[in-house]
Amino acid sequence: MSAQPASPHDFASDNHAGAHAEVIEALIAANAGHAGAYGTDAWTARLAQRIEELFGPGAITIPVFGGTGANVLCLELMCRPHEAVICTTDAHINLDECGAPERITGVKLLTVEGEGGKLRADDVTNWEAQRGVEHHVQPRVVSITQCTELGTVYTPEELRVIADAAHEQGMYVHMDGARLANAAAHLGVSLAAISSEAGVDAVSFGGTKNGLLYGELVVLLDGIDADRTAFARKQLMQLASKMRFVSTQFEALLADELWLRSATHANAMATLLAERLDPAEGAVLAHPVESNAVFVRLSAPAIAELLSRLEGEPPFHVWDRDRGVVRLMCSWDTTPEDVERLAEAVREVLAG
Amino acid sequence: MSAQPASPHDFASDNHAGAHAEVIEALIAANAGHAGAYGTDAWTARLAQRIEELFGPGAITIPVFGGTGANVLCLELMCRPHEAVICTTDAHINLDECGAPERITGVKLLTVEGEGGKLRADDVTNWEAQRGVEHHVQPRVVSITQCTELGTVYTPEELRVIADAAHEQGMYVHMDGARLANAAAHLGVSLAAISSEAGVDAVSFGGTKNGLLYGELVVLLDGIDADRTAFARKQLMQLASKMRFVSTQFEALLADELWLRSATHANAMATLLAERLDPAEGAVLAHPVESNAVFVRLSAPAIAELLSRLEGEPPFHVWDRDRGVVRLMCSWDTTPEDVERLAEAVREVLAG
Amino acid sequence: MSAQPASPHDFASDNHAGAHAEVIEALIAANAGHAGAYGTDAWTARLAQRIEELFGPGAITIPVFGGTGANVLCLELMCRPHEAVICTTDAHINLDECGAPERITGVKLLTVEGEGGKLRADDVTNWEAQRGVEHHVQPRVVSITQCTELGTVYTPEELRVIADAAHEQGMYVHMDGARLANAAAHLGVSLAAISSEAGVDAVSFGGTKNGLLYGELVVLLDGIDADRTAFARKQLMQLASKMRFVSTQFEALLADELWLRSATHANAMATLLAERLDPAEGAVLAHPVESNAVFVRLSAPAIAELLSRLEGEPPFHVWDRDRGVVRLMCSWDTTPEDVERLAEAVREVLAG
Amino acid sequence: MSAQPASPHDFASDNHAGAHAEVIEALIAANAGHAGAYGTDAWTARLAQRIEELFGPGAITIPVFGGTGANVLCLELMCRPHEAVICTTDAHINLDECGAPERITGVKLLTVEGEGGKLRADDVTNWEAQRGVEHHVQPRVVSITQCTELGTVYTPEELRVIADAAHEQGMYVHMDGARLANAAAHLGVSLAAISSEAGVDAVSFGGTKNGLLYGELVVLLDGIDADRTAFARKQLMQLASKMRFVSTQFEALLADELWLRSATHANAMATLLAERLDPAEGAVLAHPVESNAVFVRLSAPAIAELLSRLEGEPPFHVWDRDRGVVRLMCSWDTTPEDVERLAEAVREVLAG
Repeated sequence: MSAQPASPHDFASDNHAGAHAEVIEALIAANAGHAGAYGTDAWTARLAQRIEELFGPGAITIPVFGGTGANVLCLELMCRPHEAVICTTDAHINLDECGAPERITGVKLLTVEGEGGKLRADDVTNWEAQRGVEHHVQPRVVSITQCTELGTVYTPEELRVIADAAHEQGMYVHMDGARLANAAAHLGVSLAAISSEAGVDAVSFGGTKNGLLYGELVVLLDGIDADRTAFARKQLMQLASKMRFVSTQFEALLADELWLRSATHANAMATLLAERLDPAEGAVLAHPVESNAVFVRLSAPAIAELLSRLEGEPPFHVWDRDRGVVRLMCSWDTTPEDVERLAEAVREVLAG
Repeated sequence: MSAQPASPHDFASDNHAGAHAEVIEALIAANAGHAGAYGTDAWTARLAQRIEELFGPGAITIPVFGGTGANVLCLELMCRPHEAVICTTDAHINLDECGAPERITGVKLLTVEGEGGKLRADDVTNWEAQRGVEHHVQPRVVSITQCTELGTVYTPEELRVIADAAHEQGMYVHMDGARLANAAAHLGVSLAAISSEAGVDAVSFGGTKNGLLYGELVVLLDGIDADRTAFARKQLMQLASKMRFVSTQFEALLADELWLRSATHANAMATLLAERLDPAEGAVLAHPVESNAVFVRLSAPAIAELLSRLEGEPPFHVWDRDRGVVRLMCSWDTTPEDVERLAEAVREVLAG
Repeated sequence: MSAQPASPHDFASDNHAGAHAEVIEALIAANAGHAGAYGTDAWTARLAQRIEELFGPGAITIPVFGGTGANVLCLELMCRPHEAVICTTDAHINLDECGAPERITGVKLLTVEGEGGKLRADDVTNWEAQRGVEHHVQPRVVSITQCTELGTVYTPEELRVIADAAHEQGMYVHMDGARLANAAAHLGVSLAAISSEAGVDAVSFGGTKNGLLYGELVVLLDGIDADRTAFARKQLMQLASKMRFVSTQFEALLADELWLRSATHANAMATLLAERLDPAEGAVLAHPVESNAVFVRLSAPAIAELLSRLEGEPPFHVWDRDRGVVRLMCSWDTTPEDVERLAEAVREVLAG
Repeated sequence: MSAQPASPHDFASDNHAGAHAEVIEALIAANAGHAGAYGTDAWTARLAQRIEELFGPGAITIPVFGGTGANVLCLELMCRPHEAVICTTDAHINLDECGAPERITGVKLLTVEGEGGKLRADDVTNWEAQRGVEHHVQPRVVSITQCTELGTVYTPEELRVIADAAHEQGMYVHMDGARLANAAAHLGVSLAAISSEAGVDAVSFGGTKNGLLYGELVVLLDGIDADRTAFARKQLMQLASKMRFVSTQFEALLADELWLRSATHANAMATLLAERLDPAEGAVLAHPVESNAVFVRLSAPAIAELLSRLEGEPPFHVWDRDRGVVRLMCSWDTTPEDVERLAEAVREVLAG
């Protein structure tokens, strides 16, 4: 099999990018002889230690295959079937996982509108009338996405307010951290500052969108009863037999701050792109750019024209066809040239 | 991160082996620029074509993360929740998947004892009294493992008899083919000869145990309604975002008959091992060696002594502690030296 | 055991009323000797025939234990787990069934706000962007409540527009008809006119709230594949062993138009109550009175005072504490004296 | 609606009998005015008190609709989804509930053969190798049926041995007591002696087969965390809105020892029937008669002939067609004349 010609960098998804060279190197290094299966290997043991260093003592590391698996496993471990999860309507668990949370765990999602993609403490406390009444599901988890689906970022203070509200009601806080690295990079804080230290109880810590081939981590922080963790991961079909290959990728990501270098770069490309788009010419931002996503308002004809001009399957994601919003997503491998090429195409299209 | 010292080759599981060099090469080649996510990439398209060449026109390829995911997805696609799956008591889906089939799909497993790991046509036809009675689950799938959990292999003729019995009753045949390659290698036939051509309707086609890092294929053959395939894979948390990296591994496995070379080698090592074990000295085979597994009867003290002498986590699997049976599993990377070292240890232990 | 002293008639729920004398008579008459279990009895056979007369040829009758069971069974029969149900946020299936639909069937509910408790055709057609995309659940059922949770009633024309919109998209229409009789009585039309003839595909036809002891009917109309009906009812724990006692109650309800007499009376009591409440004194209706429910706006102190004055566990239901809305529900056994007593109490409380 | 002509008493099932006159009287007495719904009524409160008197302080009473609902609710409350239930292969939960336990709760049933319908302590302790291993479900409940499906009865001592074995392993004991009354009557002991006092942790206490119209009780004894009981009952669609009508039937059953009178009578009829069947003529008992069931071995032609001669839908149940075993079930309303008529028919058929 010959090498593939490198296809151009599109802006559709950070899942369109491949794996970082340091990740591939780690993978090759780990491919040496035999190792215990199902997590009984040296890489997974070292990773668990590293996660405790980063997120705090007692943090429990559960490598899984994918992001939906990570999210659903977190909810499974935090809820019983009559309980419920509060999230925004545009949360990935509500909109983009084909109902897996409900189907697999049986819990109900209670959706709130959100502001700029963010949930507020009020959204947590507004369900008191349901408490203890057998006709109603019982809110047990608040699930927030960091960065949000709109590319915005919760500050540590915002998270703390939500977490306090949740904990006062005996609820847990779950964080869908598919892009946790981008949030930390944007804020200039540690991973712990926006998770364990802010009161989050369980994190789906994403790797795939930040330069891995596959694999995500469930990180359980203080307070979750973990005695059924291993069984639940197996039942939810997230137990990798050759787990060392998941763990070694995360080791690489967390070594030498690769996670931070990659996320910082992707964020910077998004900022550059936003600067290159001129509202005066008709390219108005729909949301502030706080991570690696740029949301832009464009007319339907402009969107159609742009889709036809650019390469990629697809070149970018039409976020909201009715309101004319597109999402332009930068990756760890997006180059300034990619950005300029896109910005130029937008300009041309808008100039008509 | 420095390279790991190669650990010794143990005989615990073909999951203890790493990935074949040709697989790693393919992975590196596929890591070039951007590609469509969720299977909209060139590698996945080519793989689908290759599978049709191998299994016959109309075969549908569904890459997934792992073996349990593959099995459960097959059952999900073949059954409604009041239906049932006939399998042997020692089937992987019954014994080793932590109840995932029941938990996830809601179906019931109807277990039969099996002979030498194999299910017979009678086991399929013995449920007629349950048909149409609302108090009883309705048998809908016969699930067989090839190679069986005891390392034995169904011949094409044996499969055909079972498939005919199943189809006559309106049932499907599922094949857990985690080691399908080893079976084909043993019989000297094509993959299709013991699946599509023998009447099997859906295959969990294993790659991980035959030299991949991760990834399995669901292959749907004639007769399965596939319109909910994509949704079911997503709901069952088996949709890889960067799917090209699963597909490219399978492309490598199926190119230049790597699957056959690796399986043939592993089988040969098992045969060599069986030859080196002397029944006269007390190492009696528990089952005929037809693939890469060797089942040996040993006394409890001999097992304990052997476990303490050998390296590996663990060095081999104690299959049945009560009856004194161990499983010695060979892999694509097992060497004649590994075999001789193990055989020598067994001899020494048995000699006291 | 001595007879209980008759407790006063409250306005909390039509579930607080007992059973109609004609229902009790039928029950006693059916309690004669042995009869086939699980629906193989003469009463169930006759009921099935009667339902076909009322709802049209081909209507399938499935007696079940309760209302939640009826609703969940309908959704189970109409959906596969990756599909979804569109309903209003205040629908009983969304708000008052403790997540049973999601927990039991795995489907997701897609909620829309509704106007006056009613869903509109637009709510059905607004999900087209999700069609065929594996990340999103696939809308398959529109579920409407007749009468709505706010006591309003869909006209046959309104239903037809919704049903046409649903069918055009390959979707089914489910009707939660816990109070179907009250809707038909209000409109002066047949049960079929607002179900089978208006394009509804499956009805949860309520009996308990209209004078039965227990028992509801699932009525499947044209188009639902019914081959797994019997199995699904059993799995969902809704198969009554002595089914004749459910069926005979429905026979009584449908004989001599008991359903219509009882519903007409309950509706008339609600209309009387609404007339006796004077908006000028501060008792403003929150919704038009179209069935047996009266929704009234009251201040928080007035609600508290009224609750303390009246008998009943509770005397009425505080529908929305935040907005100050109470629900006053009339039953088949509500008397004009009950109504006058309540209206008097409201007047006194409002007069301060 | 005119009264039905009393059909003859058959021997197919104790579900073919109607309701006892004292039950009907209680129902009529309870049908007086309004009462709180969903269990907030006086009858349910009194029943809870009565159950504590009978089963011991702290016993929790949960009225439900049916027997499958009772069993599944018990398992739901005792297990998490990765746990498992040990039972005999012929247990009702394994054979006759259409897979509802697996479908609804997600747990796996681990079946053992049983002797004379009974499970033994060994069956509980044989799963130790599975403990703590994530690939295997974790046994959590032992479920036994009293009387067994073969009509045999566990003594208090037999129950205690099983319960001790279960508790030593951190497991619960569930009793499917659909015919608990018949077992107590046979042994001449209290209901508690073969449940709470023998170490049973949760009972499905049957009423329908002993003269109720519908309704069963879940009785939770010491040790079960009951905080999700109410929610689970609702989610499992077992919450009766007019619950007083379930509770009043059980009040009647437990008043004046109606349960004991009825069960004693049914048992006596079975004993009489067994006496009237002459093994010398070919009517050999398949199991000892210890309750209200008589299992008889008959040839296939004799079975066919007998089925055609007798009235009933069907007249009796062919338990095992292959081995030629029929089940003749007596009820609270079986008369000596019914027995003599059946015995005479058997004699005639066997005499050819």
